[in-house]
Amino acid sequence: MSKLWGGRFAKKTDSLVHQFNASIDFDARLYDEDITGSIAWARGLVGAGVLTAVEAETIITGLEQVRAEFAAGNFAFAPDDEDVHTAVERRMTEIIGPVGGKLHTGRSRNDQVATDFRLWVMRACDEMQTWLADLQQALIVSAEANLNLPMPGYTHLQHAQPITWGHWALSHFWPLARDGKRFEQVQEQAAILPLGAAALAGTAYPVDREFLAQELGFTAVSPNSLDAVSDRDFAADFLYAAAMTGLHLSRLSEQLILYSSAEFGFVRLDDGYSTGSSLMPQKKNPDTLELTRGKSGRLIGNLMGLLTTLKGLPSTYDKDLQEDKEPLFDAFDTLGLALPVMAGLIRTLQLRPERMAAQLEPSLLATDLADYLVKKGMPFRQAHGAVGQVVQLAEEKGVALTAVSLTELRSISELFGEDVTAVFQIKTALAQRTVKGGTAPAALKNQLLEAKQALRV
Amino acid sequence: MSKLWGGRFAKKTDSLVHQFNASIDFDARLYDEDITGSIAWARGLVGAGVLTAVEAETIITGLEQVRAEFAAGNFAFAPDDEDVHTAVERRMTEIIGPVGGKLHTGRSRNDQVATDFRLWVMRACDEMQTWLADLQQALIVSAEANLNLPMPGYTHLQHAQPITWGHWALSHFWPLARDGKRFEQVQEQAAILPLGAAALAGTAYPVDREFLAQELGFTAVSPNSLDAVSDRDFAADFLYAAAMTGLHLSRLSEQLILYSSAEFGFVRLDDGYSTGSSLMPQKKNPDTLELTRGKSGRLIGNLMGLLTTLKGLPSTYDKDLQEDKEPLFDAFDTLGLALPVMAGLIRTLQLRPERMAAQLEPSLLATDLADYLVKKGMPFRQAHGAVGQVVQLAEEKGVALTAVSLTELRSISELFGEDVTAVFQIKTALAQRTVKGGTAPAALKNQLLEAKQALRV
Amino acid sequence: MSKLWGGRFAKKTDSLVHQFNASIDFDARLYDEDITGSIAWARGLVGAGVLTAVEAETIITGLEQVRAEFAAGNFAFAPDDEDVHTAVERRMTEIIGPVGGKLHTGRSRNDQVATDFRLWVMRACDEMQTWLADLQQALIVSAEANLNLPMPGYTHLQHAQPITWGHWALSHFWPLARDGKRFEQVQEQAAILPLGAAALAGTAYPVDREFLAQELGFTAVSPNSLDAVSDRDFAADFLYAAAMTGLHLSRLSEQLILYSSAEFGFVRLDDGYSTGSSLMPQKKNPDTLELTRGKSGRLIGNLMGLLTTLKGLPSTYDKDLQEDKEPLFDAFDTLGLALPVMAGLIRTLQLRPERMAAQLEPSLLATDLADYLVKKGMPFRQAHGAVGQVVQLAEEKGVALTAVSLTELRSISELFGEDVTAVFQIKTALAQRTVKGGTAPAALKNQLLEAKQALRV
Amino acid sequence: MSKLWGGRFAKKTDSLVHQFNASIDFDARLYDEDITGSIAWARGLVGAGVLTAVEAETIITGLEQVRAEFAAGNFAFAPDDEDVHTAVERRMTEIIGPVGGKLHTGRSRNDQVATDFRLWVMRACDEMQTWLADLQQALIVSAEANLNLPMPGYTHLQHAQPITWGHWALSHFWPLARDGKRFEQVQEQAAILPLGAAALAGTAYPVDREFLAQELGFTAVSPNSLDAVSDRDFAADFLYAAAMTGLHLSRLSEQLILYSSAEFGFVRLDDGYSTGSSLMPQKKNPDTLELTRGKSGRLIGNLMGLLTTLKGLPSTYDKDLQEDKEPLFDAFDTLGLALPVMAGLIRTLQLRPERMAAQLEPSLLATDLADYLVKKGMPFRQAHGAVGQVVQLAEEKGVALTAVSLTELRSISELFGEDVTAVFQIKTALAQRTVKGGTAPAALKNQLLEAKQALRV
Repeated sequence: MSKLWGGRFAKKTDSLVHQFNASIDFDARLYDEDITGSIAWARGLVGAGVLTAVEAETIITGLEQVRAEFAAGNFAFAPDDEDVHTAVERRMTEIIGPVGGKLHTGRSRNDQVATDFRLWVMRACDEMQTWLADLQQALIVSAEANLNLPMPGYTHLQHAQPITWGHWALSHFWPLARDGKRFEQVQEQAAILPLGAAALAGTAYPVDREFLAQELGFTAVSPNSLDAVSDRDFAADFLYAAAMTGLHLSRLSEQLILYSSAEFGFVRLDDGYSTGSSLMPQKKNPDTLELTRGKSGRLIGNLMGLLTTLKGLPSTYDKDLQEDKEPLFDAFDTLGLALPVMAGLIRTLQLRPERMAAQLEPSLLATDLADYLVKKGMPFRQAHGAVGQVVQLAEEKGVALTAVSLTELRSISELFGEDVTAVFQIKTALAQRTVKGGTAPAALKNQLLEAKQALRV
Repeated sequence: MSKLWGGRFAKKTDSLVHQFNASIDFDARLYDEDITGSIAWARGLVGAGVLTAVEAETIITGLEQVRAEFAAGNFAFAPDDEDVHTAVERRMTEIIGPVGGKLHTGRSRNDQVATDFRLWVMRACDEMQTWLADLQQALIVSAEANLNLPMPGYTHLQHAQPITWGHWALSHFWPLARDGKRFEQVQEQAAILPLGAAALAGTAYPVDREFLAQELGFTAVSPNSLDAVSDRDFAADFLYAAAMTGLHLSRLSEQLILYSSAEFGFVRLDDGYSTGSSLMPQKKNPDTLELTRGKSGRLIGNLMGLLTTLKGLPSTYDKDLQEDKEPLFDAFDTLGLALPVMAGLIRTLQLRPERMAAQLEPSLLATDLADYLVKKGMPFRQAHGAVGQVVQLAEEKGVALTAVSLTELRSISELFGEDVTAVFQIKTALAQRTVKGGTAPAALKNQLLEAKQALRV
Repeated sequence: MSKLWGGRFAKKTDSLVHQFNASIDFDARLYDEDITGSIAWARGLVGAGVLTAVEAETIITGLEQVRAEFAAGNFAFAPDDEDVHTAVERRMTEIIGPVGGKLHTGRSRNDQVATDFRLWVMRACDEMQTWLADLQQALIVSAEANLNLPMPGYTHLQHAQPITWGHWALSHFWPLARDGKRFEQVQEQAAILPLGAAALAGTAYPVDREFLAQELGFTAVSPNSLDAVSDRDFAADFLYAAAMTGLHLSRLSEQLILYSSAEFGFVRLDDGYSTGSSLMPQKKNPDTLELTRGKSGRLIGNLMGLLTTLKGLPSTYDKDLQEDKEPLFDAFDTLGLALPVMAGLIRTLQLRPERMAAQLEPSLLATDLADYLVKKGMPFRQAHGAVGQVVQLAEEKGVALTAVSLTELRSISELFGEDVTAVFQIKTALAQRTVKGGTAPAALKNQLLEAKQALRV
Repeated sequence: MSKLWGGRFAKKTDSLVHQFNASIDFDARLYDEDITGSIAWARGLVGAGVLTAVEAETIITGLEQVRAEFAAGNFAFAPDDEDVHTAVERRMTEIIGPVGGKLHTGRSRNDQVATDFRLWVMRACDEMQTWLADLQQALIVSAEANLNLPMPGYTHLQHAQPITWGHWALSHFWPLARDGKRFEQVQEQAAILPLGAAALAGTAYPVDREFLAQELGFTAVSPNSLDAVSDRDFAADFLYAAAMTGLHLSRLSEQLILYSSAEFGFVRLDDGYSTGSSLMPQKKNPDTLELTRGKSGRLIGNLMGLLTTLKGLPSTYDKDLQEDKEPLFDAFDTLGLALPVMAGLIRTLQLRPERMAAQLEPSLLATDLADYLVKKGMPFRQAHGAVGQVVQLAEEKGVALTAVSLTELRSISELFGEDVTAVFQIKTALAQRTVKGGTAPAALKNQLLEAKQALRV
């Protein structure tokens, strides 16, 4: 039975229940935010005439000592510390005496925990931005170094049209930019101060909430106290942004796993980013990529868990909400490894241009062949059909598209002429796609510039 | 076997496969966006020198006729129409002849479908805003009409502190404001034009993509063509925003279901918003609220489905992405009923102040009793304990908190005095919570104003 | 306002509410089960002395006529038909007159809908078994035809050890066998009769529930009437079994997509199971496989949706439960296409042994090389290390494992002898794995037999 | 770089990568299963002629010492111990010397980890059965003690018909029985031995897999080695069974939360199972129930995470599968607290019959009133309508159903007679529901017996 709320209780909490209810195992991680929040609250209480300046200073000194103990790793938990808020207040009061009991005036754990958690999310978003930018930087470097290195482009995992490594690497830059944008929006949403909502109805003391917001780096004050203690949108938003980041990493991983297979062989992972087999001595496995892909499941699971927990809850605080923290901590830790590891993997990745070149076969240029006919005046839909027949002919004969003779071509369409051979150049095909976002050298140069600028912001 | 791509195929598609692959059953819904997009593309092709102005006009006339047929409900689908894009082009070409075959020059279904779908999402977000605002309006009206009507406030579904109906109704206004914000962000994200990316590498024709964006109401042009045909973030974002809206509705529903139970009895649903039982003649069931709560599962399921589908896909287009549309259509239709129905339910809801009053019992004021001691100088933590003892005493005697005698109170703390009776006034308790977001009349008046302003924007 | 329950209502249901509440759009699909269930109930009411035999026969005749109308596709829905149960009773009463009003005696829609839905699930499980068995059959045929055709085996998508096509094809047989087992268990769970539970408390008429169960093919009678109207475990079980089937199909699809890529080239999809591109004339895309993989998301989403809907509901019937049917219908329809399509695809799949052979390079035998050392007395852990050095040496020299000279081998371990060349035979490697489940010919023959037997059951 | 597989690697693993890949933090939990499995494997290797009996005994002695170190909590992990399998083998070899290097002959971590994990699941299912049975026992005791205590029954959370506490308590017994059945099926599915599959193709040594199965308590041997290392169905099955158990607990929790509210007041939680508020001294919150309800989200999230991880993976082993363990451990730990806590809560729950009685108002008997008319010959559908009118009349007059005069009743239907008053007896209404599963005393007695028998099995 907690000293925090035990006055009216005749009987101790069952010990299994205590263990079930306790959150200290995971919310100890919030000690810093809790203490920062409490210091602001103490100052707020001075403004409200509840504490004298001296009392507040005593409390703040006590809190800072508790912070130091946590930071040094020698904070001693007591068996009754059901959560970090209880633990901090208990220890602070041990240090400074009964005046510590004044800190919780006009505050509830409901608004306190919401404040701490929002502070944590605001900081976590900053970390995310750093990790994302680091991986984006690695992709830019890789793109720049091989901006015009030709490789086959795929749709449906089938050879489609030639692209370049730079084009491909940047195609994984932009999804991360969207992730960054999402975490920005999460941070904005998190930066609404709940402190002062008390249990649900608003504190009964004239604390200046705008002052509290400023002290703590919040940009606004929650407009409704019932909603303030109830709202976990910011937590769901964070998990959604993390799940999307995970998805983007899983898509990048999938491709690099393919590209590092014996059959593709476009890239070779650095030894530092591969692992071996306990049985098969030759194996060099893309474990980090597979784990990254696998962990997208975990990130989605975390989101789904919280959404289900929130479903159907009445407004204000219900204890179900205690389930909000662990999935965020897990998502943060997961991406806190996956993103830097991916950045390192990209930085040390060896490309194998000769293996890419080996796959640059003529059928990748079939669209260009149709465009050739279009330029000679044939409507595209008809040109597509004609080239389809050429492809089928080549396939029946078991030869490459380039080995179909002009006579044969002309039997399909009279528009084919001697100049058709000019079509079968990878370089020419690449150079055609000059539109913004396209695979032509100039377009890629611009895109690279745009990416660098996006990152600088 | 489709005329669209069949040139190279020796054999017809298996009929079950045709049925499996076809998306016409659901994507016919995109006919308007598809035609709008194609008209812009035709104009773009004029700029690129692919079409003459006359050819473009012919094509546009044909497309407008197809649009009219769809709008009038007499568009005749052909068995080979595998999707709306095929159907529109097929019919347009029937109408205007072979020149129609020029429309698809330099375009792929990959960028075409992404464009159509983004246009649809941009419009859908507008509808969402309207529906959300309508429900918010209904909540404002309800709040204003009963701004200071006292009712018990709950945490953990236990009596906590007195609040008012206005306070409660507004607590469901703000989550919807966050939903509106989210749909705004979805719309921004959707408004990036993919058209011109062609299959994956960028179109080979010098089409002015900025011009296309302007024509179609997009605010920017996608920076990378591989990403352009691959990116479904906007679809996931939409489903996430819808899932959150669903959660907020489920929480509102849960409370109104409780409030309309015989035991609470705080509200009575209008007959138009209730249904009966096939067996029990007396029943008046909150079916609409239950369905709304139930449908939050469906909305979360839609999100989960798409996230899983996206997981592990390589970049550019894979056919898996065809699974993107149905969940969005379903989410849109679900909220397109749930939001207006909830607005109507709120507008016709009858409040029962006498039933609320019956639950306003003295223990709701225990915090105020502790505050009384605090004001007399006792540290809050100690005051909380003292009042806990008072509560336990009252419970043991089986009486209300107000029935504990002053002598008994003083046996617990000497700070209790004659003036303690003043604490036991609901009105006084309400009036204390004057901070922003609190339950005092002035604070609520301000909050109402803030809500009205938020809605106007 | 429904005639079914409208007696006590003063006002008509709002029309949007009617649309929101109505389930007739999707539950019309249950007409056959509803009529079958009602016929049994009519007979039960005779036993209970509620209906005379003549009345029951009149009712049954009416119901059979309704069934015929539905089957012929000319059942005329009325605007007030909110669900299939209402529609059937309404029409039956139109046909036979007021005596039809006796059918619903002692029954509620709560137990009626649970009965109908369980009947549907019981039938759906039978269909699933047929579809699963058909695909399993296709895999058996493919395995048998190429039981010992060597191909590279992969772990981590890296070359691991040689296996055979038969071994691989059967590796996709057994997961489907587990799916079949799961649907069997679903069917068992569904076959518990809820009819007689009435709204929640049990019917007040002495209907023989065991008789009803027998009439309808249920194997047992629900033990608790509150649970009977509330229990949707069987629906969740069905969705879970469907999601697992979808996962197994997605894993099979993923591999066949890889195997049909230009880089692997192990298989060629039949034209009837491929589709083309609207832009790129050469494309032959594995759309059906990609869609199958993509739809695993939808199936998981359906499960997620229902689980979330069920979460936190009190026992007995809540209208939220109306959300139970659509996901099951969707899962059933999805697999009802995906399974037969996959079976057809497997049956028409062309193997390309020469492309498989091209990938059977010596490093696949590194484990066998380690085993060679083990047989000469070296502990495995040490042998693994030694062969690792051989692999590294070969890689540094840029040669195949077989091109490392005996001298070089002996510099790593003196245990290498002339006989080492015998190791480098794919056939020998395959023949070594004779344990049950292994890739040796005899083991595969047994496995094939076991698969055939499993299917026959 | 691991000693386990490092032979071919030129470079050490990046330290962040090591941390990312390592599973030792969570799979150390499998030490007991790993050692048990290794002992069986050592014996199998004797049978296969790979180890001498003496070598095997040495290895087993070493393994048992490692087990003792783990059990005593003084196992010393080394920095390179990437997983429990590596750690056990490393330490065992330190203890017994180079002969330890022979243990891994013919085995891979792929089949080893699958074996260990299946063993763990088999044991975990046993624990689940114990916990489930304990809660079921608590429900039986509660049901038996108050078998015929009347209380209102609800559908749609509205008063429906009278039931009894015993009836209600048992309605939560049967879902748990289904959970038990599910865990039984999970256990069956888990008890298929993968050991001997080696990396993927089957071990090259003639180990007797049937012998291994017997040694380890498996009931069968996996039929296909590729599937054996790939199959995680049993893990998904476990998570699904856990999610369903969580759902059942969430539904029970929801009701008890309602019943313990001030408005319902049907039950009072024991102090040992409640907690208080840090701000409001009077609060006694059903935290344990809310947490249990909230944790159903986490259990569903765990399932969804794994399903997504498995989606689209090729067959055999991919490192993504390492993500299989943490969600199961979490689900197991969650239910390992939630189930016993719920059992304790039920055992100490105080019922408040007077509060239940206060809600037993006449409208709960409206169905009985309709049945009264049916017995007088009116078709049910008509009787339902007539009673609906009675209800409306009573409501308009603002009186109870019982206060409608006979004259008024007869104005609605002439079939109403003096004997109608007999209908308005809760006891009579209860006694009518004599069918199996119904709420009549005899039916409940039988049901209780059936529940006891179900538990004994």
